Formats: sequence, C-alpha cells, structure tokens
Amino acid sequence: MAAVNPDLQSERDGATFDTNKLTFLLDGGEGMTERRREVEAEALADPEVTGGPHYHFMSRPEQYSDAVRKAVHYMKQAKTGKFDNPADAHWYRNTLWPNEMAPIGLHTTMFLPTLENNSSPEQKEKWAPLAKDFKIIGTYSQTEMGHGTNLKALETTATYEPELEQFILHSPTLSSIKWWPGGLGKTSNFAVVMASMIIKGKNYGMHPFIVQLRSLEDHTVITGIEVGDIGPKFGFNTIDNGYLKFDHVRIPRENLLMKNAVVEPDGTYVRIAKNEKAAYSTMIFVRAMIVLEVATRGLAQACTIAVRYSCVRRQSELVPGGPEPKVLDFQTQQYKLLPVLASCYAYWFSGLFIRMTYFQINYEIQQGNIDLLPELHAVSSGLKAFTSYGSMAGIEQCRLACGGHGFSQASGLPKIYTTMTAGCTYEGENSVLYLQMARYLMKSFLQAEKGETTTNSVAYLSKKNLDKCVLGATLSPDTIIAAYEHRAARLVRKAGLRVNALEAAGKPYHEAWNLTSVQFTKAAEAHCHYFVVLKFADTLEEMEDEAEIHNVLLQLFQLYACYGITNYAADFTEDGFMSQEQLDMVRLRVLDLMADIRPNAVALVDSFDYPDHILGSVLGRYDGNVYENLYKWAKDSPLNKTEVHDSYYKYLQPMITGKSNL
Amino acid sequence: MAAVNPDLQSERDGATFDTNKLTFLLDGGEGMTERRREVEAEALADPEVTGGPHYHFMSRPEQYSDAVRKAVHYMKQAKTGKFDNPADAHWYRNTLWPNEMAPIGLHTTMFLPTLENNSSPEQKEKWAPLAKDFKIIGTYSQTEMGHGTNLKALETTATYEPELEQFILHSPTLSSIKWWPGGLGKTSNFAVVMASMIIKGKNYGMHPFIVQLRSLEDHTVITGIEVGDIGPKFGFNTIDNGYLKFDHVRIPRENLLMKNAVVEPDGTYVRIAKNEKAAYSTMIFVRAMIVLEVATRGLAQACTIAVRYSCVRRQSELVPGGPEPKVLDFQTQQYKLLPVLASCYAYWFSGLFIRMTYFQINYEIQQGNIDLLPELHAVSSGLKAFTSYGSMAGIEQCRLACGGHGFSQASGLPKIYTTMTAGCTYEGENSVLYLQMARYLMKSFLQAEKGETTTNSVAYLSKKNLDKCVLGATLSPDTIIAAYEHRAARLVRKAGLRVNALEAAGKPYHEAWNLTSVQFTKAAEAHCHYFVVLKFADTLEEMEDEAEIHNVLLQLFQLYACYGITNYAADFTEDGFMSQEQLDMVRLRVLDLMADIRPNAVALVDSFDYPDHILGSVLGRYDGNVYENLYKWAKDSPLNKTEVHDSYYKYLQPMITGKSNL
Repeated sequence: MAAVNPDLQSERDGATFDTNKLTFLLDGGEGMTERRREVEAEALADPEVTGGPHYHFMSRPEQYSDAVRKAVHYMKQAKTGKFDNPADAHWYRNTLWPNEMAPIGLHTTMFLPTLENNSSPEQKEKWAPLAKDFKIIGTYSQTEMGHGTNLKALETTATYEPELEQFILHSPTLSSIKWWPGGLGKTSNFAVVMASMIIKGKNYGMHPFIVQLRSLEDHTVITGIEVGDIGPKFGFNTIDNGYLKFDHVRIPRENLLMKNAVVEPDGTYVRIAKNEKAAYSTMIFVRAMIVLEVATRGLAQACTIAVRYSCVRRQSELVPGGPEPKVLDFQTQQYKLLPVLASCYAYWFSGLFIRMTYFQINYEIQQGNIDLLPELHAVSSGLKAFTSYGSMAGIEQCRLACGGHGFSQASGLPKIYTTMTAGCTYEGENSVLYLQMARYLMKSFLQAEKGETTTNSVAYLSKKNLDKCVLGATLSPDTIIAAYEHRAARLVRKAGLRVNALEAAGKPYHEAWNLTSVQFTKAAEAHCHYFVVLKFADTLEEMEDEAEIHNVLLQLFQLYACYGITNYAADFTEDGFMSQEQLDMVRLRVLDLMADIRPNAVALVDSFDYPDHILGSVLGRYDGNVYENLYKWAKDSPLNKTEVHDSYYKYLQPMITGKSNL
Repeated sequence: MAAVNPDLQSERDGATFDTNKLTFLLDGGEGMTERRREVEAEALADPEVTGGPHYHFMSRPEQYSDAVRKAVHYMKQAKTGKFDNPADAHWYRNTLWPNEMAPIGLHTTMFLPTLENNSSPEQKEKWAPLAKDFKIIGTYSQTEMGHGTNLKALETTATYEPELEQFILHSPTLSSIKWWPGGLGKTSNFAVVMASMIIKGKNYGMHPFIVQLRSLEDHTVITGIEVGDIGPKFGFNTIDNGYLKFDHVRIPRENLLMKNAVVEPDGTYVRIAKNEKAAYSTMIFVRAMIVLEVATRGLAQACTIAVRYSCVRRQSELVPGGPEPKVLDFQTQQYKLLPVLASCYAYWFSGLFIRMTYFQINYEIQQGNIDLLPELHAVSSGLKAFTSYGSMAGIEQCRLACGGHGFSQASGLPKIYTTMTAGCTYEGENSVLYLQMARYLMKSFLQAEKGETTTNSVAYLSKKNLDKCVLGATLSPDTIIAAYEHRAARLVRKAGLRVNALEAAGKPYHEAWNLTSVQFTKAAEAHCHYFVVLKFADTLEEMEDEAEIHNVLLQLFQLYACYGITNYAADFTEDGFMSQEQLDMVRLRVLDLMADIRPNAVALVDSFDYPDHILGSVLGRYDGNVYENLYKWAKDSPLNKTEVHDSYYKYLQPMITGKSNL
C-alpha cells in the first residue's frame, strides 16, 4: 500500500474526534459497522467483484454484459443462503455494483415481493420458489410510455375470455407500450404486468398478472410479445430498462395474481378485502430507502471525493508570494463544500429516523393500527423529494468544486451524479411528491383552523408560535428549531389561506389548488427543511455523552441551519420574525462555522467509511495519491491502446499525406 | 414530412406574434437569419453531415473516430474557401457537431490564432500557411495536471542550450504533464506549448513554443514525447483532450514564437514591447462567446425541448374527472420552465451586447485607447460565470421537467447538459472569474468612497441610490432596474466595508480579502444580475416599434426580474428598501406573468429556430410526434441488434438451464 499523501495525513492527524465512533453512529451501531466491513472485505477480496473490466472503459453493451456476469455471480452466492440477512445482501450489492444498477435488481426488490404479496397461497407455492431459486428471472412492469404517475390512465388491457379461461393481454396504443421497467429489455424471462382487467366489457381497473416473456430454454421471445431495451440513458447503463408490447397475448386465468381479487372460470369477479395498507407500506419503505440509500449516500460519496481532493490540490496563493495553499483553505471553496457536507449529515440522520419509524409503524399496521399512515406517507414523500433534490444539487457542486478534473470520469463524480439524479424522478416524481405532502399540510392546516390539535410532524400548525425570533449568537438548537417551525407554519398558512380566498372568490377547489401549487410546493419544502433540522437536533441530544462527536456535530448542525436561513432569508425576516441584526449575525456565523469545521473536514468524510472501490474515484482516493493515479488511469483508457488511432489511417492520413496506408 | 401533432399545432396557432421577427432579433438581423438558414440547409442536405452513425449508439472510441471523419470533411470544405466568413464556419460547425466538440476545434480557435499573433513575420510566413491548409494539425497546450488557473505555477520548462541553438523541453514532475488540451491526445501532430523559458539558469517566465508531436508521414510519436488521450469524460467524448510529457525534447531555437520576445543564438534575451492588450482581448472575446454560444444556446435548446414536450405530454387531471391536460397547464410545470425561458432571453440579449461591445472596444484598443479594457474584462468574466452557471442549472431543470424520458439520451438533454456544463470550468473557473469581477468592484467601490465618479456598468456605485423602492404593479423597467441597482450597490458596499473593517482590525489585506470572498462573490453575482436586467431593458427599448414582439418580451423581462426578486427577496427587503407589500405583489405577479406567457411558450422556443438535427431530441421534435419516434429510436439501439443478447449465452443460460449453447 502506497504511503498516504502527507497533505491528507496532516488533516487526519489534526482531527479532534475518533472517526470510528462517528461511523458507528451513521451505521446504526458498532455491530452494524463491523458486519458491514466484514461483508465488504469479503466482496473486495473476490476477483469476480473487483477484477472485471474497468467500468468507464467499456461501451454500453459491454457495461450491460459485465453487469449480467456480476448478476450471475450474485445469484450463485445468494443460492448458498449467505444473503438471507437483507442488510448483508445490500452491502454486498453496493460493493459489487458501486453506483450501478443491477440487471436483476427488480427481480429481488419488486418481482419476488409482488409475487409474495399478491398471490393466492397456491400461486405463491408455485411461483415463489422458482423466483427465489432464480429458475425464472422477473421484473415488475407498470409504467407505460405515455404514463407514469397517473396510474388510472395506464392503457394496457387484460381481457377475459371465459371460453378458453384465458386473459388476452394487449397494448392498444403506442403510448400503452410498457416503458422503463428495469431488467425488462434483455434479462428477464418473466414479469408481473399491471393491466386493466376487462370482463364482459366491464373494466375492473389495474390488476397484476404474471406473464412469461421469453423461453426458459433459449431465451427467445414468446409469440405476440415484443420486448427490448429502451436505449442508452444519462446513467443506469448497466441495466436494461425495457419496453414491452403485447399483441393479443393469451395467458391462463391462473396467471392473474389472486390474493386480492379472484376471477372465476365463468368470469365472475370476486374482490377479496384488499390489503391496501400493505401496498401503501411498500411504497413508503421504498421512499424511505431512497432518502438513506440513494440521496444521502450519493452525496456522502461526492463529499468524500471533493473534500479529500481539496486538501491535496494546491493552487494560487493566499499570502502574496507565499506557497500555494490547499484549495480548501480558500473561503469560497469552503463555502462550496462544507454546507453541502453538513446537509449530507442532516439528510443521513433524517434517513435513519424515517427507516426506523417505518419499521415501528409497519409493526403497528400489522396490528391493525393505521392512524400514523397518512403522516408517514406524507413525511416519506416529502423527504424523498427534499433530500434527492438537495443531494443532486450538492453532488454537482462537489463536481464543480474539483475544477477540470471533476469533469473527467476518473473523478467518479459524473457516475455518482447520473446514478443519483434518477432518484428525483423514479418512485414518485419530486414535484408530485411535494404536492402529496402539500395536501397533507392543507388538511392539517384546516384542522388547526378549526381549533383541532395537529400532531407529530405538523404539531406546530396548531400551537402558538413565537412572534419574535429568539436566536442568539450561541445558536442553541431550540431557537433554531423554533425559527424553522415559524417559517414552515407561516408558509403553510399563507398558502392555505390563498386556497380559501380563491375559493371564496368563486374558483372551484381544483383551480384554486392549481393556482396555489407553486406556493404550496414551497411550503412543503419548508416543512421538510424544518423536519430535517429537527431530526438533526434529536441526534445531537442522543450524542450528548460523546463530547468530541457532539462538538463537531453541533457545528455541522449550526452550519446546516444557518446556511439554510441565509438562503431563504426573507422567509425568516418577513412579518418581522427575525431581525436584520439576527440575520447579519447568522451570515457571519456561517463563515465562522466553516473555519471551525475546516480542520475536521477530512475526518468527517472519512467517517462515511467508503472503500476506494465503491467511491470509484482517482481524486477521492483514501491515500490522496491523485496525480500518479490520474496518469495511470489515462494511460489505461481505450483510445491509448494504440499509439496511432485507427481513425488516422481511415481519415486523417489520406488528407495529410495525400496517400493512405489502409 | 409527418403532420404536426395537433397539440403542438394548436399552440402555434394561438401565438400572438410572428416568430420570424423574433428570430431576426436573436440572430442580429434578418440578413443574418437568412444566411444562417442557408448554411444550415446546405449542411443538412449533406450526407457526410447528417448521415453518419447515431451518436448515442456508438462507443466512445467510435464517437471520436466519427468526429475525425467529420473533421476531415470539414477541412476539405474549408480548403475551398467557403468558410472564409467566420459566421458561416460557425454555423456549419454547429450543424456538423451538434453539442459536440470537434477534434480539430483548437486548431482553428487557438493554434492558428496563436501562431498568427505570436510569431515573427518570418515564422508566420512559415507556419501559418501550413496550418491554414491543414498540412499540420495543431493544438494549444498550456494547462498542466497540477495547474490551470494559476499560470505562474506552470512547471514545464524550456531550457536554452546555446551550443546547439536548441531549447530542451522537459516535464520535470508528474504534475507538470500537460493535461486537457483538446485534440492533443490522438489528432494533432503539432502544438503550441507554453513553457517557462530558462536561459543560463535564469527563468524568463512562460513563452510559446511550436513543437512537433507526431510524424507527418505516419503519425508516430516523436522520440522523447509521450502523448495520449486523458480518458472518458462527463461529456466532450468526441474530442481527444490529451496529455503530453516531455523527456528532454530538443527543438530548434527558431521554434520559440518570437513576436514578443527574441532569444538570440548566444542566449541573449530581447523583450519586444509585448502586446499584452491583444492577449487580454482574445481572452475577453472567448468569454463573450461563451455567454452567447455556449451558455445561452445550450439553455435555449433545452428550453425548446422541454417546452414542446410539455405541450405534447398529457398527464393527470386538473378538473376532477376531466381529460388529461398538457403538463404545461400545471402551474408547477410553468414555474419550472417559464422563468428559465425568460432567463434564456435575458442571457441572450446580454450576450449580443457583450459581443458587440467587444468589437467596438477592440477597435478602440487597436487605436491605442485601452481605457475601457478593465470594464470589459470584468463584465465579460462575470457574465461568463453568471450565465454559464444559470444555464447549467436551467438545463437540468428542463431535463427534470421532462420526467423519466428526460433521463433517456433520446431526450437530447443529457448531451446538451454535459457539453454545456464544462463551460462553468474552462476558460476561467467561475469562482475565480467572480473574484476577478469582485476586485474590479472593490476598486470601483474605493473610488466611489473617495468621491470619484464611477462609470459604465459600475456608475451606480457613485450615484445616490433611492432609499425606497418605487416598484408598482405596472413593473416598469426603470423601477425594476433601480431595484437591482440598489441591491448590487448595497452588497458591494457591504463587502467593501467589511474588507476595510477587517484591515482596520489588523488583518493583512490578503486575509481580509479571503475572509470576505464569499460575500464578494455574492456581490459580483448581484452586479451581473443587475447588468443582465439592464441589457434586457435596453433591448425592450429598441423593440418599441414592434408592438407584438415588445409585448411578449416585456412579459419575459418582467418575469425574469420578478423571479429574481423572489429568489433573493431578502437582498431587496433588507434596509427597508422594498416593502413587504411590494414583495408580495412581485410574488403574485410571477404567477400572473406565467399565465400571460403560457400561450406564447411554444412560439418563444420556436423563435430560437433550431433544426431538429441540432436539437438531437426525440422529445423536442418540431412536429411533436414523440411516442412513435421514441419507440423507433429504442428499436434502433445497440442492445436490440439481436433478440437474445450475447450475455445470455455467456452467463445466464448456464445458470438457468444448467447447460450452455456456447
């Protein structure tokens, strides 16, 4: 192992806390960190995991093909039962596919769970073992070319024919072609297909059908089906997001997954009490996991890369005629990176909270108590939007902060960005999610207006807020929370009152809502911002006995909160809540806090504890030996395989020399 | 030609102005539009231009190779003299390489001009004709792996040896390896190399040398030189940005470009009055062109795609139970796109202004009047940073506004983004540029403090600003300009006073400056914002006789300005300048203005007048026939060349069937 670059070593030597202890907090306990490191170490030692061709030096078809190689390796490992603990499987996959999507990803996350949750007992007995043993590989096919969010408008039909006891699957229009499902294009031989069920001319709405797409013998496509890859994307190029078109494809009646509804041979439709809450609950889980596993971790990786590189890169001068300083010593560079780093910690703690809450509430749902479901749904929707967008912007800020080298794939940053940014769109487009949260806020606002008590995350709506901000130079968490609470409450009320006013002026509710939707989106953002600040403060309380960790987390908390106030200053100063003096103080504290955090910057990103293989970045290497490895990386890249590129002989030589060696 | 999608046709039918007239304004006159269309039409009719393989379906080496094919085609055309008008050449290249970098781009934009501007008359006579006739292909090699911005720290040396009358070029360290020059890796056989000249142990600083890199016979690399491609990047993959390492490479004394400095055979160094202003002037020109040709046009293309698609895509419901509306009818979608569209027009008019000013001032410089150079340098630096960052953020907003399909390369948006975002870093990293402008603002602030009159863009610093904002519901341009002026003046003064205060408190100036650099960056942004508002207002005045155009531009101007005020609200309300009532009015006017502009949205992007080939987008097609072409595009993509992908036989089949057909 090469010696660590002294410029990075000196940063580590100067840290004021034990990074291991912070890592334990982020992982959710020392035991979790240990187990994660074990799984990662085992994966990293496996040449099938780390020995493949270099991601950035492959074409897109090669990237896909190599991901299939890894998928088969993964499935073989899974069959041994070693991933029966979901966390183990998760860590292993993160190491096998660093910032890449697995072609069989939806098999495990959607296909198998849908089979298990939507099948009758007999169906489950038939299909689940095949899927678990990878005898069949499936995906979940819902989104169509013309529709995503609006499920009611999906067009694929499944028409029942009692004579043959068959459903006829059909894509009646171009826009009805299934589009986007992961692993659909080339990998899967089965799919759960969502289609509108029609019996004797009556549309019974969307139902899940299990459909064979390709032969289990030779993978050729089943007659009547057209299936393929949707083509290259901004990211996600290891996965074959696919399209699927049906031309009157017949499947047996038994392929309707019949847990929630049964169609009898004669076409009689029997609805069984549908467990809508369970479906709801899966959606919430996925959104909670996006906060923690997509948004937060993508940002954490980007911060790791940019902060380390900013302590290795030296540039320009601070003192005239003096040596070139580390770029992180420039205030402008700190301003690009440290607030983003603080937001990363903030999102992470909210992510841990929402995951834990999901498990708690899910338990209560199983017990029949669904009171907290609307709250959890709203919070998980809003947080998914808030953190994924914040993360996306933060990752790009990290990339730009690395200057020219950030633009090279060697930095690892473009790959993190293109993978992560998709999280702003999938599993609920962010604007739509904010509006879902907004509807919950509107409802809560109306309750509060009626004098009812609102609870949990919206408790502040029915309580008396402070008129004047009491924030002082100590920036105590309580006063910060109160400020964010006041802002959210005011924005929610203002939007709610506008809806009421527009209605009173004669607009129908849906129009009043659309005309207030921009304002309500901002109110929903402010609510999420408050929530993230609150959860960060809760974490601080938990860490009160660990003085060294508490100190640095408090600085990050204060930076996150103060930076937020300066960016939305008018929201805090309007109605005279925060004074000009307070705002000026907050602005100066941002600068001071950055100087306070600066010596711990590298330790704070080290605490995220990403192995170099997962970071995939020459700039962000743990040892900081950037330049020699940038040179080595470039020399290995495809255009350098030959001294003279083929295109010279083909095109340039005839023009330059007047002759051709071809 | 397919019929236009009725959803798009109805938008065009409802426009209130003649798009052609607006196009003329954007192009700089009807004659310019006509000529541009002629050049584009000729290029579009040429199969060498439009008939090549599809960009997104190629591997990176194939993308490079095909760009070389195009380069040879271009050079052949250029030799006929048809591009002697630089504008013609520019339009042709935009059509040949839509949002792509040409491997020979630096040959024409940097290598040849550097030869012409830095050579002695004899050298010019020798080299310029070879370069013009593409007998040699060159690039400009300055940036090194370890340094970009700080030119003084560049490490490559050129040591003179009087005995043999040779310079010895050498890369003394790893970080001194030349890194990033376009076309350097595989394409160029010559380069102008910037190196520190050392004669008899004395370092004379950076000088330009012309160096042969590869054989003119067979393109093999010259002994002592190591040259190659730096590997795949976020974008720019058609160009071979390269590295270059010298191991004591000898070149004749005559290869020092000797216009500004001569080294005599015995090593005597003679400095000739250096035309620093000319060099300065080139840099300004490049930055001005980035505003107009990179930032603005990238954003205009993204707006074109997102706005058209938002009128074709139908989704969800506005009226309960009603038909699915065009997504642009949702207020939240308008809020994503219309302010971005307004900013695009704003940047465009500033770009036209700065280009025109460059030509005027350049003329004065030739006459020996350099008074306006600092102003132009500051404005072009700041505007480059302001518009490139704004454009980058706007393009991503357009992409996200297209939902899932925006993530597909079929949308064209990722390609526009990855090409354009590089403009935030090259030719002056944005933060560095803002600080350059900030130093100009600081200087002007000090002048104003001393009672001197500041002029041109900073005239407001020495004039008495209004204490109270007079903005009313009519949003007259004068009152808007005054508001932006007040904001910029206050932020500049506040930052300047802080530097003074820190100095008075005993900090050395450089430290006071670093501690105020975040504030000064914001002041520089505010100054640019003011400038862009001002130039937009000037354009409005010019168009007063064209009522229909004036109306819609006025709405865009007001939207741009009001949106800016809402985003930086505290900057306007602090010190009591703008009242709460005014701010609330501005916020509501943003929503109203969007509704006013909405019917003209498609006409406003049509006015940018981009042929489909340049847009490269299925979503943004002029005819709006999105879905059928998305389907067609996907079917043509590489993974669909075979029904069963190779990776099945290689990896999946053995696992699924227990046997292999391989």
